[in-house]
Amino acid sequence: MSKLVSDLREAIERCGLRDGMCISFHHHFRGGDFVLNMVMDEIADMGFKNLKINASSIHDSHAPLIRHMENGVVTALETDYIGPAVGKAVSQGVLKTPVIFRTHGSRPSAIESGQSHIDIAFLGAPASDDRGNCTGTIGRSACGSLGYAFADAACADKVVIITDYLVPYPLTRRSISEECVDYVVKVDAIGDPAGIVSGTTRLPRDPIALKIADYAAKAIEASGLLKNGFSFQTGAGGASLAVAGFLKDIMLKQGIKGSYCLGGITGYVVDMLEAGCFEAIQDVQCFDLRAVESIRDNRNHMEITASQYASPTAKSTAASSLDVVVLGATQIDTQFNVNVHTDSNGYIIGGSGGHTDVAECAKMTIIVAPLSRARMSIVVDKVDCISTPGSSVDVLVTQYGICVNPCRRDLLERFTGAGIPVADIHDWKAMAEKMNGIPRGIEHKTSRIVARVMGRNGTQMDTIYQVE
Amino acid sequence: MSKLVSDLREAIERCGLRDGMCISFHHHFRGGDFVLNMVMDEIADMGFKNLKINASSIHDSHAPLIRHMENGVVTALETDYIGPAVGKAVSQGVLKTPVIFRTHGSRPSAIESGQSHIDIAFLGAPASDDRGNCTGTIGRSACGSLGYAFADAACADKVVIITDYLVPYPLTRRSISEECVDYVVKVDAIGDPAGIVSGTTRLPRDPIALKIADYAAKAIEASGLLKNGFSFQTGAGGASLAVAGFLKDIMLKQGIKGSYCLGGITGYVVDMLEAGCFEAIQDVQCFDLRAVESIRDNRNHMEITASQYASPTAKSTAASSLDVVVLGATQIDTQFNVNVHTDSNGYIIGGSGGHTDVAECAKMTIIVAPLSRARMSIVVDKVDCISTPGSSVDVLVTQYGICVNPCRRDLLERFTGAGIPVADIHDWKAMAEKMNGIPRGIEHKTSRIVARVMGRNGTQMDTIYQVE
Repeated sequence: MSKLVSDLREAIERCGLRDGMCISFHHHFRGGDFVLNMVMDEIADMGFKNLKINASSIHDSHAPLIRHMENGVVTALETDYIGPAVGKAVSQGVLKTPVIFRTHGSRPSAIESGQSHIDIAFLGAPASDDRGNCTGTIGRSACGSLGYAFADAACADKVVIITDYLVPYPLTRRSISEECVDYVVKVDAIGDPAGIVSGTTRLPRDPIALKIADYAAKAIEASGLLKNGFSFQTGAGGASLAVAGFLKDIMLKQGIKGSYCLGGITGYVVDMLEAGCFEAIQDVQCFDLRAVESIRDNRNHMEITASQYASPTAKSTAASSLDVVVLGATQIDTQFNVNVHTDSNGYIIGGSGGHTDVAECAKMTIIVAPLSRARMSIVVDKVDCISTPGSSVDVLVTQYGICVNPCRRDLLERFTGAGIPVADIHDWKAMAEKMNGIPRGIEHKTSRIVARVMGRNGTQMDTIYQVE
Repeated sequence: MSKLVSDLREAIERCGLRDGMCISFHHHFRGGDFVLNMVMDEIADMGFKNLKINASSIHDSHAPLIRHMENGVVTALETDYIGPAVGKAVSQGVLKTPVIFRTHGSRPSAIESGQSHIDIAFLGAPASDDRGNCTGTIGRSACGSLGYAFADAACADKVVIITDYLVPYPLTRRSISEECVDYVVKVDAIGDPAGIVSGTTRLPRDPIALKIADYAAKAIEASGLLKNGFSFQTGAGGASLAVAGFLKDIMLKQGIKGSYCLGGITGYVVDMLEAGCFEAIQDVQCFDLRAVESIRDNRNHMEITASQYASPTAKSTAASSLDVVVLGATQIDTQFNVNVHTDSNGYIIGGSGGHTDVAECAKMTIIVAPLSRARMSIVVDKVDCISTPGSSVDVLVTQYGICVNPCRRDLLERFTGAGIPVADIHDWKAMAEKMNGIPRGIEHKTSRIVARVMGRNGTQMDTIYQVE
């Protein structure tokens, strides 16, 4: 019983799309994604209006979405992240209703509870059989884990798998099972491989990033958490990645056998697994080719769903057991609240992703950032948007050393004892303001709400306003 | 965040068990299961009453359950199969309310839809970490697939994993994920390995079984379905298993490359996979050690959930694509209705398991049985219980040849063309009655209903009455 239909339009028709429905997408093809644009172009062409999109993230490659927002095809958006291109348009008021920002953990929770109902999920899959058993680990558009797509597949009324690589039934190493799938569409290409995964991930050479990473690694070493059974998440860019580099050396030198690495996964984390620093990887998203190859070949490199990653309503998640996470920030205030949603002009340039989730769960949450960026202080009196509350953040590391959240005196004592330079966050704010001047604040903010930032518990945490 | 509790009693207390609740079990430890008895003994000891059990199957090893039924600890039962020991007691009226018989496919469907609500699932697992990530593929009590346990894990309000083999977190090759699990209990033994899986599965030597199997294999060969991409399910015992033996020879000789084998899996099916007869195995339950080893080691040997196996409400299942299934019967009537629930005295001695599901789905459903068993005709005017409706059954094979359901004239023509001896089912009934005498029917049936047999669509298909 093949579920292949001739093209996207037939799938959309058979699914019974109507004005006002909610359709969903995952973001595993990141900057290389073709799926969202091709589906939205077809839907716009068919004359539908007033749709809601629920997407795990919106990237700059989705800039054509702006036109569909302008034309009233899309009037509502739920997502965990919006890149600067679409973010600017949203901040300027292109969308009829406020964006609902969730997190990578609370999105599947809201979908599974029925709070975020999805009528039709359009899920790109690098390999699928004609009944819809599919995987991200093989094919020309291989992206590795399909972690963010599981909740959509399980809960949407209708599920369409869009693939550029049809394999014989049954695809034995499926991520998503045919039991969820209504239709399968074969297209020429679901993405640009170069945009889906990066090539080799390299450690940064920027001396400030390396300095920050060195302090962060020393903080982890001094925290008391770095011992056998240690678990760890870090990001893919700049200082975050460099922390993994320093940490690997420390773990190998001290013979520490960690439990697992979590998160979006790079080749550098794979190296740590293969070097014996960790027993396992729990992978909700692959960032580079080496991670894709590893999740395909290494049975200790686990694919996890977004729920298994960090759902606040799961009985436990990979995040629940996390010791240390290293995260970034566009702003952090003296209460340790972190903003990763907006830039200094108030424009949306990101979103929580899993930031809020793992920060809340981890035993120690480290924010790494240079003290200033583009002559703007990172440390402020009050962040323009609370993405992750200060109660979830333990440590800020910049090139000048470490600030510890006052509620973590235990860590302060450990760091001081280890000879790590420790400062008060208010002093850093003063220092940055002396260097850069006092931030002017957002100048052209209006009173119209363009986005609501939901906390992990489902209540509204903050609001983002239109910028003129 | 370990979920280990000190013992079963603590888990039961923490789950908040109350009189009248529904608790559930899977049957992957079959005749070797210790879990159901140890949980029920503890619950009885704690003084609870009026509980409903939802178990995928009840085996003779669960005979202690009869006492709990007599004492009012258990007053309701939903299951897909009841072995003769408990079956006889149920038939004699030990249970306060009628058993609800479902199928291996409709059980998870009813659980997932909320029709069968489970308050607490007690799930034995041959290996688990202390957060409840667990698998059936390793450990002293390894049973292979945990297919029947998934719906319980996903949908029960509380989930307790009971294991005799704790492994470090994270168990990378988990079947059930920690996100579903509330508590983990370590016990000395969850089962008797000798009863969980049999040793080497051997083909039968009984000449009648071999004759039946030979006819069945010839029928498959003549059906037009045996070609590249062929899919197949057969049972683990007697003639059913022997069909696999004959079929393997035919497939190897003709160079036919099948798609997948489905079902409860024996080493003989594994041999067919490894010999290249099939590309994959979709395995909801392992019957022997070789199947357990294969699902552990061979990536083309897939573990599937009971929903993925045959849920009538899934968008498609492994059963949906099935070409041929070979199944048994205790009775078959001239309308091709099959009874696998009761014996000739009206006692419950089994249940559908997946019989009804795959019979409905497969392109050709073959019933294999000797024409007489214990001097009773298998073919009757009207089965005592309709387990699988005649509309799902295409062919009956006995040692005398083949009967074809009149609605499948296409098959009749193919078999006749292939020179296979074909008979009318009424003639066989007459022949069997001539040999054995006319069956007396159930002698001591009362008017009290002891079980309701539900069809795949959720409506009642038949009723089983108390026997005095």
